[in-house]
Amino acid sequence: MKVGDQAYRTVWMPQEGIVSIIDQRKLPWAFECLDLKSSAEVAEAIRDMAVRGAGCIGATAGYGMALAAREAESLERLEVFAAHLIATRPTAVNLAWAVNRQLKLLKALPREAWASAAKVEAAKIADEDAAACEQIGQHGLVLLSEISRRKADGVVNVLTHCNAGWLAFVDHGSATAPVYAAMAAGLKVHVWVDETRPRSQGARLTAWELAQAGVPHTVIPDNTGGHLMQHGLVDIVITGADRVTRRGDAANKIGTYLKALAARDNGVPFYVALPSSTFDWSITDGVAEIEIEQRSAAEVSWVDGPDAEGILRNVRITPEGSPVANYGFDVTPSRLVTGLITERGVFPAEEAALVVAFSDVAQPCGR
Amino acid sequence: MKVGDQAYRTVWMPQEGIVSIIDQRKLPWAFECLDLKSSAEVAEAIRDMAVRGAGCIGATAGYGMALAAREAESLERLEVFAAHLIATRPTAVNLAWAVNRQLKLLKALPREAWASAAKVEAAKIADEDAAACEQIGQHGLVLLSEISRRKADGVVNVLTHCNAGWLAFVDHGSATAPVYAAMAAGLKVHVWVDETRPRSQGARLTAWELAQAGVPHTVIPDNTGGHLMQHGLVDIVITGADRVTRRGDAANKIGTYLKALAARDNGVPFYVALPSSTFDWSITDGVAEIEIEQRSAAEVSWVDGPDAEGILRNVRITPEGSPVANYGFDVTPSRLVTGLITERGVFPAEEAALVVAFSDVAQPCGR
Repeated sequence: MKVGDQAYRTVWMPQEGIVSIIDQRKLPWAFECLDLKSSAEVAEAIRDMAVRGAGCIGATAGYGMALAAREAESLERLEVFAAHLIATRPTAVNLAWAVNRQLKLLKALPREAWASAAKVEAAKIADEDAAACEQIGQHGLVLLSEISRRKADGVVNVLTHCNAGWLAFVDHGSATAPVYAAMAAGLKVHVWVDETRPRSQGARLTAWELAQAGVPHTVIPDNTGGHLMQHGLVDIVITGADRVTRRGDAANKIGTYLKALAARDNGVPFYVALPSSTFDWSITDGVAEIEIEQRSAAEVSWVDGPDAEGILRNVRITPEGSPVANYGFDVTPSRLVTGLITERGVFPAEEAALVVAFSDVAQPCGR
Repeated sequence: MKVGDQAYRTVWMPQEGIVSIIDQRKLPWAFECLDLKSSAEVAEAIRDMAVRGAGCIGATAGYGMALAAREAESLERLEVFAAHLIATRPTAVNLAWAVNRQLKLLKALPREAWASAAKVEAAKIADEDAAACEQIGQHGLVLLSEISRRKADGVVNVLTHCNAGWLAFVDHGSATAPVYAAMAAGLKVHVWVDETRPRSQGARLTAWELAQAGVPHTVIPDNTGGHLMQHGLVDIVITGADRVTRRGDAANKIGTYLKALAARDNGVPFYVALPSSTFDWSITDGVAEIEIEQRSAAEVSWVDGPDAEGILRNVRITPEGSPVANYGFDVTPSRLVTGLITERGVFPAEEAALVVAFSDVAQPCGR
């Protein structure tokens, strides 16, 4: 996607031994890129959410393994670096998926072939991610076109939660890909952007992305979506996912489940957009089986932003004496999911349909 | 309730012609009281949410009419002052209820009797509110005791949204009254406090209140409740209400409806606590008939709080180019409400039961 006049991806290798990323912690107040010079720096960037989003951290971890392949003098060390990368974020499946894909490849090669092979593979992972998201956009476009045709004013009101935009992937995004495709196709779209506390990825990243691309949108507090749906102001909900089970239970940013409930209660279709790398074929029951990351209380208690003079400030917004909990994700059960928008098409959130559609990649259930 | 060692109400008349309030905009960073010297200043304090919460703005408006009764040289002027007070906040029913109660009383009296009669009536409205909340606490205590008896550890986990604490009333609160009663009765209670964006009444007011009273609690982003309920971490949801219809549809702070949906989906009881002054007997269908206040975008885009040095700062948290919507309330349909905790007892959210229980005050339906 373009930032100003220049096309960007979220992660790339500008030269040998360097992985570049867009520092997403600085957005929307500043657009800055960051050069990472070791697999440890890549791990730190993922842990600290300088990069975030399922596809983006997968691709970044893939590039992190390209650096690890240069650093590691033995398979044992490579596995240590791999474990470090995987340990940074426990919920998103793409991270472990990309690291293990690199590890499997490198294990079959002699040490001297690692660096170049891992670099090529990292680029391949990134390219596949971008291509998958582009396809998700095309399949989602069909859904948005149908809604537009049914409406008198033709305007499709999409609600999304968190950032499953191009910043969350390598390019295009998952949940936003159909929106960008719709804009390109001349459809009228308007996006309700959930602020997405505590880290405000909606207000800070999705709104910024949509503004860059000229997509009409409105930022709303996370509390608002139910009211909008009760009053017919939302035509479709599309969110991303960090991990989707073989029956279509979807772990996504905390609060997604609440929007799925509201969608169901008001007859609004609720779609999850994901590249197939986000499936975790080893589990079925997402609520019971997906580990939910708990993050620091500071993310809830402190927010940053510019003051009236434009100076960036960090302020406390919860009382000092009050404990805070910060669960990163929740799981939306498949019974609330109208469909999954993938690079291979739109599928019902049902195990039978999914294992057929993805029979070449779906491993047998882990239990 | 006590602040430090001193007992406070949220609104009182320290001397003739002055209405004092706790300035709730300053909490939790500062505890300051404010003297209001005219009905116009009272209206401004309500509009700007220096006082907020159903019972509190009702009682404050009652005192505002006591000032208006001194100011108005004619019934015509008194009605203008009354209209100004009512126009400050459209959703909460207590406001118009208190103003009209004063108006009705004063209309039957000669001009020279207004000032003293209105002052006595304002105190009566405030006393009734405090007494009703105390009763709500006792009725709610029965529910919490039952839950505590069923649990191995005896700890009752209550989730609440916004602030329906004593700050929202004259004393005790509605949703928090059962919690304070439980603490007094020696029950183990823990409260999940929804932050309640955009104005963060949960994080700023409810958390502060509970900390003052020594109630164990945890502040959570509004997105969190569904996940907690999926994992058995919430035993009961109790919220307040700004307006409840004759069948029990409840308008409350935006986002309440989402918690009611999650409670229903997980078999968690969902109660609305309210004094009977919050009923609007003239309407039935809350979603269709209750006007939802839209407030300024600045409430969403800007937050204030102390920085690391303790200096209060106001910072922007949404990008400048992105529009923002700010709906103040949503309506939870009665089908999602387990029961209504009132000063007369706990009742099902059903028209037949409610009009019998409140037959002396329930007017016939408006349509």
